[in-house]
Amino acid sequence: MTGVRDIEALIFDVFGTVVDWRGSVIREGEKLGREKGLDVDWSAFADEWRRRYKPSMDRVRKGETSWRNLDALHRASLEELIEEFAITDLTEEEKDHLNKAWHRLEPWPDSVAGLTRLKHRYIISTLSNGNVALLTNMAKRAGLPWDLIFSAELVRHYKPDPETYLMPPSLLDLRPEQVMLVAAHPDDLRAAQSHGLRTAYVTRPLEWGPGIEPEEPDPSFDIVAEDFAELAEELGA
Amino acid sequence: MTGVRDIEALIFDVFGTVVDWRGSVIREGEKLGREKGLDVDWSAFADEWRRRYKPSMDRVRKGETSWRNLDALHRASLEELIEEFAITDLTEEEKDHLNKAWHRLEPWPDSVAGLTRLKHRYIISTLSNGNVALLTNMAKRAGLPWDLIFSAELVRHYKPDPETYLMPPSLLDLRPEQVMLVAAHPDDLRAAQSHGLRTAYVTRPLEWGPGIEPEEPDPSFDIVAEDFAELAEELGA
Repeated sequence: MTGVRDIEALIFDVFGTVVDWRGSVIREGEKLGREKGLDVDWSAFADEWRRRYKPSMDRVRKGETSWRNLDALHRASLEELIEEFAITDLTEEEKDHLNKAWHRLEPWPDSVAGLTRLKHRYIISTLSNGNVALLTNMAKRAGLPWDLIFSAELVRHYKPDPETYLMPPSLLDLRPEQVMLVAAHPDDLRAAQSHGLRTAYVTRPLEWGPGIEPEEPDPSFDIVAEDFAELAEELGA
Repeated sequence: MTGVRDIEALIFDVFGTVVDWRGSVIREGEKLGREKGLDVDWSAFADEWRRRYKPSMDRVRKGETSWRNLDALHRASLEELIEEFAITDLTEEEKDHLNKAWHRLEPWPDSVAGLTRLKHRYIISTLSNGNVALLTNMAKRAGLPWDLIFSAELVRHYKPDPETYLMPPSLLDLRPEQVMLVAAHPDDLRAAQSHGLRTAYVTRPLEWGPGIEPEEPDPSFDIVAEDFAELAEELGA
């Protein structure tokens, strides 16, 4: 907890940290499946979609493809999955609606209350690979009370490229150590740390479904919390 | 009012439209003046500071100087004013605090209630030449409930450069006609209109102090309102 007294802004990883992408995508799939009479394992579908996430961004990060925002990457992956899961008869409109399931992800039960509490004392923002429209639509729907939206799209670089972590301190006119990344993923936190940001690890054991242990926190993380209520407690909010 | 049914997002000019820069800067100056025993006409000081605003941005827009955010432009103007108004004995810290008066501007009396009402139905954002830190700090302090912050700083172009007006539709994945600029300045609205955005003119007769008539609205503006309560009424929020 040393050094967290100067913190002015909390920036949040979103997918898995603030919202339950897996449960939400499964529910959206099941709804579509019922409407269209599709026989699909939507848990496997959701996991496969998410597994394509990092590789698809890495192709942009390595310059193998030009900049494309996350809606576009999700859509390209979706086309592959439709093939792979032998889903037929989806109209363009239905595909677009399914792709935008990522705009309609549900928050974890503690997210809105925790953020609302933290907002009284800190600037709170996303720092997500999600595009601006996705993050804005999600926040409106779920009631996530962000002060502003920081997205990889604004710098056209995906995490863990340095440009993403350096953006919030630079644009908020703060020193890196006045900004804390909150994430459920140690690799994201380690990258932020390498650029001087503070770190809070929030474990989200259900991110990939039941029975999967969250990773161990690094001893260097400034805060480890089970949820946003504990995070708010630790941060005096 | 034709065509406003499809609107999804309202983007707001800030200085003069949402906040009373003149009254706020005068109050900040008077406070400093009392503390330091300065004899300064703070109304004239505020007006002079604001008069340097457009020319200072124009130098950036025309490429006469490289990109500098509004805090930096305000600070350069402040150095000139300190000379001109023969203000002596200000420490670096006091100058910085005075410069950041622009982060502490007070909203017009109807702003917070009107925005809160509009937020239920629309995405609401700034579209301001103010830098991100300025707009964020102002919103936190004044309780302006923005969904997100669009700033000239994000595209490194000041209004009325096209890049500024095109940013919100592009990043929100909306057509220009689904986005409405709200501003107290016809020239700002005309520029937005030339890029396909909808327009709402809110008259702020006290922006430059009492006794100055607001400009006449163009007949082409979609909405003309006296304040944000009337705007919310017109927009069905």
